[in-house]
Amino acid sequence: MNGAQALIRTLVDAGVDVVFSNPGTSEMHFVAALDDVPEMRGVLTLFEGVATGAADGYARMTGNPAAVLLHLGPGLGNGIANLHNARRAHSPVVNIVGDHATYHHQHDAPLQSDIGALASNVSTWVHTSSDPETVAADGAAAVAASLASPGGVATLILPADVCWGDGGVVAKPVPAPNPLSTNADLITRSIAVLQSGEPTALLVGDDIAGDPELLAEVAGLAVATGARVFGETFPSRMRRGAGLPGLERIAYLAEFAQMQLEGLVHIITLGAKSPASFFAYPGKASDLVPEGATLIHAVDPGGDVRATLAALTSAIGSSAENAPLVAAFRPEPPTGPLTGETLAAAVAALLPAEAIVADESNTTGLWLPGATAGAEPHDWLSLTGGAIGFGMPIATGAAIACPGRRVLNLESDGSAMYTLQSLWTQAREGLDVTTVILNNRSYAVLNLELRRVGATPGPAALAMLDLSEPAIDFVLLAQGMGVTAERVSTSEDFYAALERSFATPGPSLIEAIVPNSF
Amino acid sequence: MNGAQALIRTLVDAGVDVVFSNPGTSEMHFVAALDDVPEMRGVLTLFEGVATGAADGYARMTGNPAAVLLHLGPGLGNGIANLHNARRAHSPVVNIVGDHATYHHQHDAPLQSDIGALASNVSTWVHTSSDPETVAADGAAAVAASLASPGGVATLILPADVCWGDGGVVAKPVPAPNPLSTNADLITRSIAVLQSGEPTALLVGDDIAGDPELLAEVAGLAVATGARVFGETFPSRMRRGAGLPGLERIAYLAEFAQMQLEGLVHIITLGAKSPASFFAYPGKASDLVPEGATLIHAVDPGGDVRATLAALTSAIGSSAENAPLVAAFRPEPPTGPLTGETLAAAVAALLPAEAIVADESNTTGLWLPGATAGAEPHDWLSLTGGAIGFGMPIATGAAIACPGRRVLNLESDGSAMYTLQSLWTQAREGLDVTTVILNNRSYAVLNLELRRVGATPGPAALAMLDLSEPAIDFVLLAQGMGVTAERVSTSEDFYAALERSFATPGPSLIEAIVPNSF
Repeated sequence: MNGAQALIRTLVDAGVDVVFSNPGTSEMHFVAALDDVPEMRGVLTLFEGVATGAADGYARMTGNPAAVLLHLGPGLGNGIANLHNARRAHSPVVNIVGDHATYHHQHDAPLQSDIGALASNVSTWVHTSSDPETVAADGAAAVAASLASPGGVATLILPADVCWGDGGVVAKPVPAPNPLSTNADLITRSIAVLQSGEPTALLVGDDIAGDPELLAEVAGLAVATGARVFGETFPSRMRRGAGLPGLERIAYLAEFAQMQLEGLVHIITLGAKSPASFFAYPGKASDLVPEGATLIHAVDPGGDVRATLAALTSAIGSSAENAPLVAAFRPEPPTGPLTGETLAAAVAALLPAEAIVADESNTTGLWLPGATAGAEPHDWLSLTGGAIGFGMPIATGAAIACPGRRVLNLESDGSAMYTLQSLWTQAREGLDVTTVILNNRSYAVLNLELRRVGATPGPAALAMLDLSEPAIDFVLLAQGMGVTAERVSTSEDFYAALERSFATPGPSLIEAIVPNSF
Repeated sequence: MNGAQALIRTLVDAGVDVVFSNPGTSEMHFVAALDDVPEMRGVLTLFEGVATGAADGYARMTGNPAAVLLHLGPGLGNGIANLHNARRAHSPVVNIVGDHATYHHQHDAPLQSDIGALASNVSTWVHTSSDPETVAADGAAAVAASLASPGGVATLILPADVCWGDGGVVAKPVPAPNPLSTNADLITRSIAVLQSGEPTALLVGDDIAGDPELLAEVAGLAVATGARVFGETFPSRMRRGAGLPGLERIAYLAEFAQMQLEGLVHIITLGAKSPASFFAYPGKASDLVPEGATLIHAVDPGGDVRATLAALTSAIGSSAENAPLVAAFRPEPPTGPLTGETLAAAVAALLPAEAIVADESNTTGLWLPGATAGAEPHDWLSLTGGAIGFGMPIATGAAIACPGRRVLNLESDGSAMYTLQSLWTQAREGLDVTTVILNNRSYAVLNLELRRVGATPGPAALAMLDLSEPAIDFVLLAQGMGVTAERVSTSEDFYAALERSFATPGPSLIEAIVPNSF
């Protein structure tokens, strides 16, 4: 048994049975070993950013890591942006980066570079395997490291000769180190604040946003104390819809966020970070905590959110049963020219139960959260890390993770062009993904941001944000990768196209021509 | 004057007047300042790997840096692979990476990461600007650093508030530190070897491969001493064609390279690295220097190649006038089914004078160097760093650098899918680029490598190398980005399509269906 065979067998034994791949020569023995461990499913992608984003989507939906197989430093570079998003989403990912054979390094061959330096940017754990005998144990350790609370990217650098060398030893799964902690002092202070009657907000992180039971506990707490509840701007996964507790997210635009938080005297975070603006703007505050307000991090991301919440509800005597639940609501099919608003209405009218929404709708998506709040229960994945090009890969990984559920990828035109190769993998694997391209033929968010940062744009600047010359034809691009596609520009046509796509197995794409929302 | 305005003015004054851009919010003031310095040409790309590859192509053709404008760590990540290629090609690049405002870092906003760690992988110089007063001087230093012999990537990390803050001061250009050096001892030893009459090879690097005058000096030396001359496997730029000295490159496949170098007793490198195989293979040597042969690095990359060569030719008494020159040769238009061999013949028959070939033809390109050797003089850019996805961006940058010259991008299907967004920039800028997709519907090089590394592939492994399901339609993909395209599968049709493309201003694409060469 060689190192690669032992490693893959160990990964499968530890519950990692999908590998999103983009291999090269140095990974050929790993690829060859896929036939020796048929439980491992290899999913080929045409670009590393698709592979890493798919692993993020897979992890968000399952809570378990997929593996990624990348080719040396440049391959890791291509995957960095979506590993960054995975890092911010605390998604467990086993990130395997093939390297030259150990003895080949001395030659500084053309593809050699400092893989560790790249990996350090996105990883909670980085290790280079040294021999076939121990590589499988390294793999088991990588799985555990990826699952260490709150979850992260574990990078295993895998020299080619470690793969091909004989003497591989299958390793047992390693329990993930999860030293979930609570802090009695912070809990006591939080209780005092909640009992004070002063204006207080509970800011909840991903553990709660993705779990309706925990969210109901928080909502019950709010009902009992008069506190308000907010979610972070881009939760990694929200569980939402009719009959579930709702969650108001902090707005992306700092000025709106400030309005949301205005007047608060206390903010208690529950597995969330302190609210701060996405970007800095001249003369505007980065810190969104109202001046003078106290901030209590009752429990950090990765801490024991459940126990902390139990301590709070017990002290307050609140009940999840008092949590207000969202009423079922479906808008009527919209009519007239297609806009961001009518697009949201059509999505809300048709969204199937247990749909998974991969949301990279950016500016055009403004109306989506409101419109879809009362749809059948579904999951909503958002751009936690802010690195665009996330939606199409994450939709791909979510579909691999959840066969039988419809994935709806709402994707802005500019962002789509980063990782469009995802469509090919969707076609190849026959994934039930509906991609809606929100095509306003511009980097609309930058048109907005250009004004918000106080810059005065001239024609040269505006040209840098314009995607209309030439106009991108997403129908042709999708068809070119084997995905059926159509273009619409009215609400009626969009509604009909979306209904058709939801009813048709496999991937399809709708190019929705929408004017700029701002 | 703000920091961004002063920086751009300084870059232009230092000769950097093109910026390949993929900006985000943190770069909006840099973008806005483009209108204040109209000499700076902003070239928008849809993906960072296009921007960085284009800068590499620009540098290879001009010897001068272009600037690149990227968005934070994830944007740099997307650009890493082609910055890696630029690093290996010693291409000067001023790599500007926007960052959050200095005071925003404390909030660890979603897009924050360790930009410096990423940059260190590819840069010879990394600096973070601290204030508007000194950022322009930092820019001048970056230009100089990029040009420091032998050339490299200078990364300037640019916080948003440094751009938007007042007090910018235009800085004067800084001379590049070029401590070109010769080594008298190594020269003396090289002369002795050349005079020994023992089997000797001169292995020349990029400075010589791109300069017919220097190459003629080397060829003259070879004639006078009986030495042989080789180029590196993937020179960054070769100047070649009828009436110029030829250059035999060391083969990519180590077993062929060993045959080329067999029997040599001495190897003298002139601005080249010691020959080593691209990858390691089980049981095969990585070091290509024949056993027992002496290796003399007469001058390292970045040293004074010209002076070293002058010392050698003077001591030997050789003359560039004795260099054998390649005879003009044009194959007849090929007929029959399109193959790698007939494709090469058609290219050779039609290649215009002063064409620039961006070669990412991989396996299908085996016959190209031989077939085109006697074409009209042209430049040939190859995959120096080995990171695929280089051809289409480099063609884009070369076309920006050299208006009026036809760029021919010979691009394998698998590699094309990495940075296909290049086509949009080619259409937008109206660049005279002919892209030929060599479509064998597989990662053919990996089919070859899988067997070479000694792996025994089963169906799961072979599936990871197969691009036929679904087949990618490059005609649709090109049309989707505004580039005219057609598909051919016979030699006659390919010849006609290539002739049409060469005669038509602006970009066009030919999808050439060719069977696997191996």
